[in-house]
Amino acid sequence: MRPSERSADTLRPVRLTRHYTRHAEGSVLVEFGDTKVICTASVEENVPSFLKGKGQGWVTAEYGMLPRSTNSRMRREAASGKQSGRTQEIQRLIGRSLRAVVDLKKLGERQIVIDCDVIQADGGTRTASITGAFVALSDAIAGLIAAGKLTESPITDHIAAVSVGVFEGQAVLDLDYPEDSACETDMNVVMTGAGHFVEVQGTAEGVPFSRSELNALLDLAEKGIRELIALQQEALQS
Amino acid sequence: MRPSERSADTLRPVRLTRHYTRHAEGSVLVEFGDTKVICTASVEENVPSFLKGKGQGWVTAEYGMLPRSTNSRMRREAASGKQSGRTQEIQRLIGRSLRAVVDLKKLGERQIVIDCDVIQADGGTRTASITGAFVALSDAIAGLIAAGKLTESPITDHIAAVSVGVFEGQAVLDLDYPEDSACETDMNVVMTGAGHFVEVQGTAEGVPFSRSELNALLDLAEKGIRELIALQQEALQS
Amino acid sequence: MRPSERSADTLRPVRLTRHYTRHAEGSVLVEFGDTKVICTASVEENVPSFLKGKGQGWVTAEYGMLPRSTNSRMRREAASGKQSGRTQEIQRLIGRSLRAVVDLKKLGERQIVIDCDVIQADGGTRTASITGAFVALSDAIAGLIAAGKLTESPITDHIAAVSVGVFEGQAVLDLDYPEDSACETDMNVVMTGAGHFVEVQGTAEGVPFSRSELNALLDLAEKGIRELIALQQEALQS
Amino acid sequence: MRPSERSADTLRPVRLTRHYTRHAEGSVLVEFGDTKVICTASVEENVPSFLKGKGQGWVTAEYGMLPRSTNSRMRREAASGKQSGRTQEIQRLIGRSLRAVVDLKKLGERQIVIDCDVIQADGGTRTASITGAFVALSDAIAGLIAAGKLTESPITDHIAAVSVGVFEGQAVLDLDYPEDSACETDMNVVMTGAGHFVEVQGTAEGVPFSRSELNALLDLAEKGIRELIALQQEALQS
Amino acid sequence: MRPSERSADTLRPVRLTRHYTRHAEGSVLVEFGDTKVICTASVEENVPSFLKGKGQGWVTAEYGMLPRSTNSRMRREAASGKQSGRTQEIQRLIGRSLRAVVDLKKLGERQIVIDCDVIQADGGTRTASITGAFVALSDAIAGLIAAGKLTESPITDHIAAVSVGVFEGQAVLDLDYPEDSACETDMNVVMTGAGHFVEVQGTAEGVPFSRSELNALLDLAEKGIRELIALQQEALQS
Amino acid sequence: MRPSERSADTLRPVRLTRHYTRHAEGSVLVEFGDTKVICTASVEENVPSFLKGKGQGWVTAEYGMLPRSTNSRMRREAASGKQSGRTQEIQRLIGRSLRAVVDLKKLGERQIVIDCDVIQADGGTRTASITGAFVALSDAIAGLIAAGKLTESPITDHIAAVSVGVFEGQAVLDLDYPEDSACETDMNVVMTGAGHFVEVQGTAEGVPFSRSELNALLDLAEKGIRELIALQQEALQS
Repeated sequence: MRPSERSADTLRPVRLTRHYTRHAEGSVLVEFGDTKVICTASVEENVPSFLKGKGQGWVTAEYGMLPRSTNSRMRREAASGKQSGRTQEIQRLIGRSLRAVVDLKKLGERQIVIDCDVIQADGGTRTASITGAFVALSDAIAGLIAAGKLTESPITDHIAAVSVGVFEGQAVLDLDYPEDSACETDMNVVMTGAGHFVEVQGTAEGVPFSRSELNALLDLAEKGIRELIALQQEALQS
Repeated sequence: MRPSERSADTLRPVRLTRHYTRHAEGSVLVEFGDTKVICTASVEENVPSFLKGKGQGWVTAEYGMLPRSTNSRMRREAASGKQSGRTQEIQRLIGRSLRAVVDLKKLGERQIVIDCDVIQADGGTRTASITGAFVALSDAIAGLIAAGKLTESPITDHIAAVSVGVFEGQAVLDLDYPEDSACETDMNVVMTGAGHFVEVQGTAEGVPFSRSELNALLDLAEKGIRELIALQQEALQS
Repeated sequence: MRPSERSADTLRPVRLTRHYTRHAEGSVLVEFGDTKVICTASVEENVPSFLKGKGQGWVTAEYGMLPRSTNSRMRREAASGKQSGRTQEIQRLIGRSLRAVVDLKKLGERQIVIDCDVIQADGGTRTASITGAFVALSDAIAGLIAAGKLTESPITDHIAAVSVGVFEGQAVLDLDYPEDSACETDMNVVMTGAGHFVEVQGTAEGVPFSRSELNALLDLAEKGIRELIALQQEALQS
Repeated sequence: MRPSERSADTLRPVRLTRHYTRHAEGSVLVEFGDTKVICTASVEENVPSFLKGKGQGWVTAEYGMLPRSTNSRMRREAASGKQSGRTQEIQRLIGRSLRAVVDLKKLGERQIVIDCDVIQADGGTRTASITGAFVALSDAIAGLIAAGKLTESPITDHIAAVSVGVFEGQAVLDLDYPEDSACETDMNVVMTGAGHFVEVQGTAEGVPFSRSELNALLDLAEKGIRELIALQQEALQS
Repeated sequence: MRPSERSADTLRPVRLTRHYTRHAEGSVLVEFGDTKVICTASVEENVPSFLKGKGQGWVTAEYGMLPRSTNSRMRREAASGKQSGRTQEIQRLIGRSLRAVVDLKKLGERQIVIDCDVIQADGGTRTASITGAFVALSDAIAGLIAAGKLTESPITDHIAAVSVGVFEGQAVLDLDYPEDSACETDMNVVMTGAGHFVEVQGTAEGVPFSRSELNALLDLAEKGIRELIALQQEALQS
Repeated sequence: MRPSERSADTLRPVRLTRHYTRHAEGSVLVEFGDTKVICTASVEENVPSFLKGKGQGWVTAEYGMLPRSTNSRMRREAASGKQSGRTQEIQRLIGRSLRAVVDLKKLGERQIVIDCDVIQADGGTRTASITGAFVALSDAIAGLIAAGKLTESPITDHIAAVSVGVFEGQAVLDLDYPEDSACETDMNVVMTGAGHFVEVQGTAEGVPFSRSELNALLDLAEKGIRELIALQQEALQS
């Protein structure tokens, strides 16, 4: 039995609240159960220096956690003077994932900066971030089209992410914190609407995992991501 | 006429939402109109090294803004590797203000860390932070009493803050961003429930201000803070 | 009785020594009793990037203390790799204060950098810095006029600063270190030759202060600043 | 045809040179073709502070590249003042991978620090690092046993790693730089001697990848890692 | 002819003003012509961690320049967040030089921190610093003896330093800035009262120098240092 | 008797291996006995900003040590976030030494960056670095001539370096680590093929040294450097 009493292949309740804050071109509060992340998409009419004059745009991401989003207070990264290795891994993952479904040439010479800030953490902050960031990005792109700055959308597909893991010997979907901190294997999967993988990151926390465990986890992830993409579509139509 | 059509001595709608996130010992969302700040109070059972063995506690604060809490995206301080001078000034102000109404000896050898994180900015983030942080601090203290770790409250009085300024020649209460960015004089006032000052920080942005303007601003601030303290009391009783 | 045996409304002996070092366009040693600060004004024929092409100049300030300017040695900020929050607050205050009496458009596209370095500290280093920096700035501007780079002075008024505080229940002028470290309320006031305020920063160190105490402190500050401005005028004419 | 004219399932020539430098308890030069990494294992008779008194040891890793190990010179991380996100990702991966085959309780309260420094890069530096580091770690452990500090080895299995990817539509083993920089999908796989996964990190660089591509890549990786482990065994027996 | 019209073997006018500031245990203003450095010696009743419990003391030094001590303003090292390579070289040199004439065991488990801060620079700041710092150190030691904390002086000899160089083909003593910036060879020599070398640092700025030039420079340096030590003795006796 | 059983005026076995790694324009492994340093020379077709448009090139150097190149592991400078004072001194010395034998105008507006990375340390890493770097620089220059980018070599002479010191009362050549850590005086000498000095850096570690000791050390250094330059010539001809 999972601590949350969910069945093995059930997501936590997921909510995507658009227009959550008012300044950003896209702003979404994403909730995977008690995990809550504010995802904003900011449009900037310039590109990083390595892309100047190359006729294409860029999508990048930054990630942070409020110091008391977690059970015990973490040190504020702005105060300690650097982002942790974990933070950098996550924000690189979010950026790569979103770029996988954006035609950067069609975006034109502009940059969209995604900020994912966790205000409450209960496991799965990176997968919630990717799932919510896609909706914020979509709103920002829609704004560019509405303003006549783009004639067609550079977005090529949906993208969403979920964690899966082996918890007490069983493959389960969408780990919450009690599962995440106790599981033997933890895998984050990022997948497109077409059902193709953009990222598969599996880590044995304790016992190494077999090929058949890997397959069971991927099956669960595919099911979960299909549901998340349906929720994204619903949110974007409302 | 003020941009928001408020009269000169009217606060913006103020809301104090307690128990906003679930991990912190005190957690409050404070809203002054469109300015929204999450204030958490974290209890730590140790003190900074300069207080070790001195038989007293400490209250300190940190402040941050989400990169897109503002109209144009600001650089993330964790990414740039340091907190700006403005951030440091504000967090020092919040800490000093709260310590003014806490008997640190009665608190015992523990520290309460206040985190004020702006999720949407429309002027007055530091005064909203102080006003909300007091409620979060009160909840954290109440928890210590409920847990039997304190027998009486070390809080000696209420504390709240508001900005006042000279906008288009008129003294006005609780500046929003359009007023803040255009005003001639900007003053932040921190006051106790007893009506005494803890901080008065007035700055001439353009034309220096006279003694009579100063007096008019202080009158407005006193009125506003009295209302804010009433709202704190109401929130803490609900 | 004050530790220095001064009466409540008496400044410490103030000296302003111009041309103190030889490289800077303006260089002043300012002494408020045992507090000694070297203030230099450096003219740079360019402006910070946020002002490029805007047809105006800039005045900014930096502040530092020699490690053993104080009673016990402080860590050197260059060695610790960052400026403290206190240092940043003070240098921002000095810069704002001086800009309040400079017509930046008349200054033209150049920058004047003020450096205030404390070689001996005995309280009031920020107010001594502002008072001395104005004289260094005036000398630098006079040099620009003499060199034919400016036809009229962009300085619109004098500016000086003093601290006041409530010490052992009494409002006193120009706190030295023994008073500063023991006072209940500490206020720094920056005022123009016309008698208008540029900054009023009052902080209750212990007991919050009343409106009437505030008024008594402001009266003292006005008296002290009028005397400081007379000393500036005298120094500039010699 | 691959640029190196290897068949799809062929590793580059792999060499493991033990005792490469003389100070470290384990020191191995690992070569995967033109990729050359010095892996050292340093035994320290203490543990990081978070493990003090917990009755277990620790294995951690750091990674670096000589500035001109690459085709164009990279900025030296010591000079730029921080390790890149990529560096941090890689060193975290190396440390996790090695810990998966070490019984930290049996290691006792000591730490083994692995340093992987790339002196020449041609793709696959992280997988070469893991493969070589295991041999350096084994030598360091053997030294502890020889010195009577350990009675039995805390190493529970071999561990090695290889990259696989989809290059010009074909799944290939052990990417060199020309393949790595042009491939559609890049996957790093870390596996134990027992054939179980410790890490699977697949990233779509261009086109997202299907489940069947994933399976083909994992098949190749398993073949390659089995060969690498045989080479480790051979090296350790010589 | 030298720019200053001195003969080749003449020092600039040297002044050593003791008790220059009031907080430090030793405080000296040293002037070599227009080069002016404040040297303070601070006694701390502890030692750096690498010497804890070793039964000996330590002498160390830090060096800085006020931003406008030079002809054009330098960036403040506290603001740029690090000390330059030049600053570090100089402060390491000052510390090593002073330790050469202090019996660290006799000093006991305490540290003396020397701060050398240049308020006006005209060449030779490091040699002036060493020469002045010795006097500040001597005063600090005398204070320890007077306070009964030491029974005999741990100082074993005088130490002083001077620069010499080849300027327009001629070996000259005590370079000022116009000579320093134009010379072919620049050498800093640190010597004891007994006439032995502690440091010899010669650098060819343009043309490499011969053995006979080296000898001529060392002859000049010996003469200059003998005069400097006489001035130290005179200052310490007054 | 020296620990290595060498006579007082004997170098350690010196090896210069060209083309050691494949990416750099010059790449040399230099060995002075057990001291091993990889020296690479990287050609960049631009100059640092302070030389833009001045019609000349630049040669600069960076230095590093692998963490376990030494007997006990050193902290990685990239991880600690800054280069030590020692590292900066050494890399500044290497750069100055090489620039002494390069006609920067003839080099044209390009920069050659030398990286010296110590993979195994046994004393004398800075002198080995200079000696090896000259060969790497020569290879890089030869490549520019071969590519038609330069018509004649800007190299004006050979340059090499060696350490000498007083060990157990005797002047000895080319200190290894056991000598270096125990010697009374340590001197690094950098000399050209013409036998002129570029740098002489002598430091008394314990007892100050006399003029006659200095002369004995310089005699040894000249002998050693003449041999090193012969080895450079041999290596460059092979």
